[in-house]
Amino acid sequence: MQLQPGPRIRRSPYYDAVVAAGATQFSVYNKMLLPMSYGDRDAEYRRLTESVAIWDVGAERQVEVRGPDADACVQYLTSRDLSKMKHGQGKYVAMCDHDGRLLNDPVLLKLSDRYWFSLADSDMLLWVRAVANERDFDVRVGEPDVSPLAVQGPEAERLIVDLFGQHVTALKYFWFLETDLDGIPLILCRSGWSKQGGFELFLQDGSRGVELWDRVVDAGERYGIGPGAPNDIERLESGLLSWGGDTTPDSNPFEAGMARYVDVATDVDYIGKAALRRVADEGPARLFTGLVIGSDGERPEPWPLVERAPVFCEGRTVGTMSAMARSPRLGTTIAVAQIERAIVESRTPVEVRSPAGPSTASIHELPFI
Amino acid sequence: MQLQPGPRIRRSPYYDAVVAAGATQFSVYNKMLLPMSYGDRDAEYRRLTESVAIWDVGAERQVEVRGPDADACVQYLTSRDLSKMKHGQGKYVAMCDHDGRLLNDPVLLKLSDRYWFSLADSDMLLWVRAVANERDFDVRVGEPDVSPLAVQGPEAERLIVDLFGQHVTALKYFWFLETDLDGIPLILCRSGWSKQGGFELFLQDGSRGVELWDRVVDAGERYGIGPGAPNDIERLESGLLSWGGDTTPDSNPFEAGMARYVDVATDVDYIGKAALRRVADEGPARLFTGLVIGSDGERPEPWPLVERAPVFCEGRTVGTMSAMARSPRLGTTIAVAQIERAIVESRTPVEVRSPAGPSTASIHELPFI
Repeated sequence: MQLQPGPRIRRSPYYDAVVAAGATQFSVYNKMLLPMSYGDRDAEYRRLTESVAIWDVGAERQVEVRGPDADACVQYLTSRDLSKMKHGQGKYVAMCDHDGRLLNDPVLLKLSDRYWFSLADSDMLLWVRAVANERDFDVRVGEPDVSPLAVQGPEAERLIVDLFGQHVTALKYFWFLETDLDGIPLILCRSGWSKQGGFELFLQDGSRGVELWDRVVDAGERYGIGPGAPNDIERLESGLLSWGGDTTPDSNPFEAGMARYVDVATDVDYIGKAALRRVADEGPARLFTGLVIGSDGERPEPWPLVERAPVFCEGRTVGTMSAMARSPRLGTTIAVAQIERAIVESRTPVEVRSPAGPSTASIHELPFI
Repeated sequence: MQLQPGPRIRRSPYYDAVVAAGATQFSVYNKMLLPMSYGDRDAEYRRLTESVAIWDVGAERQVEVRGPDADACVQYLTSRDLSKMKHGQGKYVAMCDHDGRLLNDPVLLKLSDRYWFSLADSDMLLWVRAVANERDFDVRVGEPDVSPLAVQGPEAERLIVDLFGQHVTALKYFWFLETDLDGIPLILCRSGWSKQGGFELFLQDGSRGVELWDRVVDAGERYGIGPGAPNDIERLESGLLSWGGDTTPDSNPFEAGMARYVDVATDVDYIGKAALRRVADEGPARLFTGLVIGSDGERPEPWPLVERAPVFCEGRTVGTMSAMARSPRLGTTIAVAQIERAIVESRTPVEVRSPAGPSTASIHELPFI
């Protein structure tokens, strides 16, 4: 499908490098172009799982909150107790509305004098500004000039050590350093939307994107680095959530596999707490789960899922499936879905429908690997 | 540029009809596919300006506000005095933040028991929900199953009369009727993002999109109807604003050509009023203006504007240009830009830079036609 470019859809600071590297497919994410493939998805998967890949994830925008009430404001926006959060630490958090709906699942970074919500695909700048102003928090809220570049894969750490030094091995998951690379200002965070290990380089000067990309690629050549993108096969195997893809507009974090990131017993107050406590008490209506498609060794070819597809049980729609792939490491056809809790908990077989006809599918815990 | 489809980017209820009609280019708007062309832009322009065109503008999403405090809530969200607004009336409005930044420029429809903000490309559901909840308005806010289909062009009214009856000629601009077509529930509004005249059919049952499309196309055959899309040439000639394309994230409505839709002298209170009054008093820093590219009969070929391009005056950047086209009706190369007010008011010649080199450009009032 042809996308018409234009000023309403922004390009990242890495755009020229991405085009030079041969990007063939894009998505639109936070009103920016997000490269999705460079034309050889098998090679992209192998690089990610066997060596190291570089991803333009500049579309992962930041909402910055700073000022005297920043701590209070950020806590109020986040359904996780942040009282023990340290400078230099990141946390995967749920941001919910007053009815407990999941609005975004960012990584929250606590810098020395400010916070960044590093966002999935929804415009939380609107939400955060509305709440901050209406509640009279003394904060400044904005979108800084920050564009993440991801380095993911088993060789990512060796590459990052070559670039930044041995001390980066001490970084715990989601923790970060404010640093630079040859004078290019950035924040180096152990993070990324894969389970292969890796880092995100939060570039803080949009004029130097291509320079940073080239510097990382040069240093990564000895490890077989190549371009890639958030990878739907690996993320399915790893059970990572795609907000807005896997979730529906009314999903709550318990339905999105984020139960352990929601603190309902805490003393701190935040938006949606009462609604979320009710869900925690009653149990969520649906659960985010894996599916193995086919039965008895059948391995049906994945079919294109351009929309969430219904999942059936005894002729009744019991949920929606949102992504599917053949897993190279498992040899099976796997998917993720949001399905009624009773079905998931009882592991009742379900049915999905390909263009060629119905297939049986079995409930499988996430992650697959 | 290839767009990767997937559940994160929704399709409208007209999607299958649009594909059958031969759509070749899409944009992403409010996280939905928005068809942009069917492969023959000259024919699309001619249909729009000479006969009648049908557009899938389902991506123009609605935020619905209903409940006891709906009047108060909607007024608070809108920088225009709504106290005289009637049921059945629509108004073009500015929604601003507390600092007076323009967040969206929807058409607001006042239905018998609820309001719809019919949106440009920003997720105002987040903004409206945050404000309504934090300010304790007793309202319900949601996105209804409503997807506009536009019928635009000089023959649009005759076609709509054929479909709905002679009484629709009495509809004033932005006024609407709650009605149906062969039992398909919809709201018929005299509206649309062109100056060629026309209507928007706000379909209220997403399962019947293709049926509605086909019904309109069948009835429109005698008028030469064909598929089209929001048309960048016609909208430039007509001086219509593309929010997020022409505006920058910090634009206020005075800088976006919306001065007459902002009431700063009214008694009613709304978000951003104090900031907007300051802008009204001091005058905006920039103005939305037309440009004629080239001097003395030169008519340079338009070049692709994939990002806002700088506009210079005596070597200094004085604004950004966001769209450009050769006008078939004027025979000149025209553009829209947001430029420092002093330059616009003094009509000082400016300079823009094509890949081939600099071009002079002269300030021109909007609309061009």
